[in-house]
Amino acid sequence: MNHSIICYILGLVLRFEAVFLLVPCIVAIVYQERAGWAYALVGLVCFVLGTLVTRKRPENLLYFAREGFVTVSLSWIVMSIFGAIPFVLCGDIPSFTDALFETISGFTTTGASILPEVESLNHCSLMWRSFTHWVGGMGVFVFLLAVMPMAGGYNMHLMRAESPGPSVSKLVPKVRDTAKILYGIYFAMTLVEFILLLMAKMPLFDAVATAVGTAGTGGFGIKNDSMAGYSMTIQGIVTVFMILFGVNFNAYFIILLAKNKKDVFKIEEVKWYFGIIITTIVIITYNIRHMFGSLFEAFHHAAFQVGSIITTTGFATTDFDLWPQLSKSLLVMIMFVGACAGSTGGGIKVSRIIILLKTVKQEMIYFVHPRSVKTIKLDGKALDHETVRDVSAFMVTYVIIFAISFLILAFDNLDMVTNFTAVTATINNIGPGLELVGPTRNFGLFSPVAKYVLMFDMLAGRLELFPLLLLFTPSVWKKS
Amino acid sequence: MNHSIICYILGLVLRFEAVFLLVPCIVAIVYQERAGWAYALVGLVCFVLGTLVTRKRPENLLYFAREGFVTVSLSWIVMSIFGAIPFVLCGDIPSFTDALFETISGFTTTGASILPEVESLNHCSLMWRSFTHWVGGMGVFVFLLAVMPMAGGYNMHLMRAESPGPSVSKLVPKVRDTAKILYGIYFAMTLVEFILLLMAKMPLFDAVATAVGTAGTGGFGIKNDSMAGYSMTIQGIVTVFMILFGVNFNAYFIILLAKNKKDVFKIEEVKWYFGIIITTIVIITYNIRHMFGSLFEAFHHAAFQVGSIITTTGFATTDFDLWPQLSKSLLVMIMFVGACAGSTGGGIKVSRIIILLKTVKQEMIYFVHPRSVKTIKLDGKALDHETVRDVSAFMVTYVIIFAISFLILAFDNLDMVTNFTAVTATINNIGPGLELVGPTRNFGLFSPVAKYVLMFDMLAGRLELFPLLLLFTPSVWKKS
Repeated sequence: MNHSIICYILGLVLRFEAVFLLVPCIVAIVYQERAGWAYALVGLVCFVLGTLVTRKRPENLLYFAREGFVTVSLSWIVMSIFGAIPFVLCGDIPSFTDALFETISGFTTTGASILPEVESLNHCSLMWRSFTHWVGGMGVFVFLLAVMPMAGGYNMHLMRAESPGPSVSKLVPKVRDTAKILYGIYFAMTLVEFILLLMAKMPLFDAVATAVGTAGTGGFGIKNDSMAGYSMTIQGIVTVFMILFGVNFNAYFIILLAKNKKDVFKIEEVKWYFGIIITTIVIITYNIRHMFGSLFEAFHHAAFQVGSIITTTGFATTDFDLWPQLSKSLLVMIMFVGACAGSTGGGIKVSRIIILLKTVKQEMIYFVHPRSVKTIKLDGKALDHETVRDVSAFMVTYVIIFAISFLILAFDNLDMVTNFTAVTATINNIGPGLELVGPTRNFGLFSPVAKYVLMFDMLAGRLELFPLLLLFTPSVWKKS
Repeated sequence: MNHSIICYILGLVLRFEAVFLLVPCIVAIVYQERAGWAYALVGLVCFVLGTLVTRKRPENLLYFAREGFVTVSLSWIVMSIFGAIPFVLCGDIPSFTDALFETISGFTTTGASILPEVESLNHCSLMWRSFTHWVGGMGVFVFLLAVMPMAGGYNMHLMRAESPGPSVSKLVPKVRDTAKILYGIYFAMTLVEFILLLMAKMPLFDAVATAVGTAGTGGFGIKNDSMAGYSMTIQGIVTVFMILFGVNFNAYFIILLAKNKKDVFKIEEVKWYFGIIITTIVIITYNIRHMFGSLFEAFHHAAFQVGSIITTTGFATTDFDLWPQLSKSLLVMIMFVGACAGSTGGGIKVSRIIILLKTVKQEMIYFVHPRSVKTIKLDGKALDHETVRDVSAFMVTYVIIFAISFLILAFDNLDMVTNFTAVTATINNIGPGLELVGPTRNFGLFSPVAKYVLMFDMLAGRLELFPLLLLFTPSVWKKS
């Protein structure tokens, strides 16, 4: 393990966090809030600390996959700790555990909150909560690689460790250019949503917070009733953009920059993603239509909730915990499916589900024709054996972490649906679950131990399990 | 697909069922119950039909793995249909759907009942319910292969399709001898339990029904309160035997017949199995000790329930649905683990869990040392790649069947814990779940559609998914 380079990159991350912390500072100036000094102070500390650590470039530049994993998970933890301090200092969230929960929930784009109500928070704190979604959504290293000229072979390792999905595809030969294109698309789409929300008469502050929250598929609301109080037009815009941010960004790259734009229709993951969304919306609309005045209204709420859950955003326009069991069960199931790989959404990812289904189909064919050749294709290309095996290992690890978390939560002696959906909502980076952690409730009722378990789950979910688990593997820490 | 030989074997199975049906007939004679004629009649029909079909040996003896799978799943369905008819004819269970549910639950050793109370049933019906557990526990084909001199290469295919676990090991070179040894051990252990129960002053009828029910890890009680009304000695004997019947029978073979008896300590699955049982009992005893008069009593009930659930038997001495959340969550988790491969228990099986855990460990090592060799060992021997891949495919298929069943059950609009544990309790062949299907409740409240889904799950669980799924694969049915 190359410790010096990991420290160096952690320093860079801290300097970036100092820049990000300017956003709540500006908001504090606009709204003349005294809480702003907390953000300014922590920003300054991050900058000084980061500069001290990065003063000297490391000499040992050996950097392998494991260094990439460790760097990424340590960075996310460090970022979250520093990001949590302002909440405590300004008094908006007095408990550090709660503040850390809120910040990890922000960066991992989960959107699960420990706050019983948010409207009494300072504007700068509200904006910082939402803005962490935007930073975490596309990933801090994708940002870092896009902006910083970094030498050495570690670009790809960092990107691989942070990007969601079973495999990372570079859009263009250079990692740095890929990162730039991704952030370009991300920024442009956020901007378009922001403008549309303004046109739909959303207040400026709300529009910024909602746009960055949607872009990161985060889910922190700035109102106590999440999105329920806004007009149907605004809710409709958010529905569309939630779903768009859950699409594999490769699709946008092909549409914008590739020569053969028809290739976009070859991406199986995107076809499945929309297929699942449409099917689920139709079934739920039919199932809840008696609860609303018109079929359109039922469709509107079904579409919003399905978009919010499958992309793991977690905004709500209505309390879906009151819906019939079929709709609730469907929502719980798409909580696990999640969005596309290479999007800002969480969950298991549609492409992993496709690969798993194809594995089973292959196995069935094998029973009938034992001499058949076993290759699994995605988008017309044969998947290499490694990827298929990695997906299996991912699923098993996922189930293990899920089971252990579920068991530790049981010590709090809350009901089983609460525990089950609390783990589901955090490991898949969604936000709300059902029962005591339903859309109108919050995560404040858990014991500190349970909260730390759920924080682990949020980080594990966002970083796709292995990077975080490797931190706890002793052999990783040996000097190379 | 070789249709003629499948029909021939189905005929043999029917003739065996005629023999099995003699058991309730004898009970009817002893208790002078008129309901006996229903069992006699169906037995006669099975015998005549079976004899007609097996009059002529099939000429085409080509028999492959797929024929094995199809034969086994069709046999289990046919056996269950004929086994259900007497319940309807004698009026003990008037609805055919309910009778079929009860019979499939019996043969698959699930023990989930649709009956609100059982004490008003005829003795012959009670015995038939319990006896189906014994037949299904070790498997009807293991019995058939042990007793019938069968030529042809299909022995192994049949045994493989019916035996639980990721791989079938022949104890001795000949399949027929293996089957004989297995049934010998099975019969002897049942007999020992029966004698011990008699010595503990259990009535004769109860002792027979309980012994065969424990042996098959079934779970149908002959009392409305399952095992709660019996003495603690009787409950203790049942606890020990439930756990013993969940052990991989290879262990008994080694102890009884192998030269090097110390090899039994090398079976990793058995060590893990006892490790999980002891850990769970300790935690639950600690968690429920305030609910009982003494620590011993808490331990007694914890041990009984853990033994009952992990071996997927499903007897109960107390309503564990009233236990604290931690104990309930632990019980739900060991519902999935299940017993050892090569035992009469259901569930995912301990050996599959071990293989999955080792896969993850291997993956983690690979991240740290990308050039490491990937072999997974069990009992000191390297597992072939096929087995590891089959286990992954099994898990995925398991999750898919689970999810679809859970979704169809949601149409009944019962609560989520009921639906979740109903599927858990049937696909793992346990019996009771939680909430509305808890130990003091029954499965009668489900709609007919839901009941058929749960019947499918019971069969899929017992036959380990693929044999049953292949029935629905059109290409399997093509003539070869």
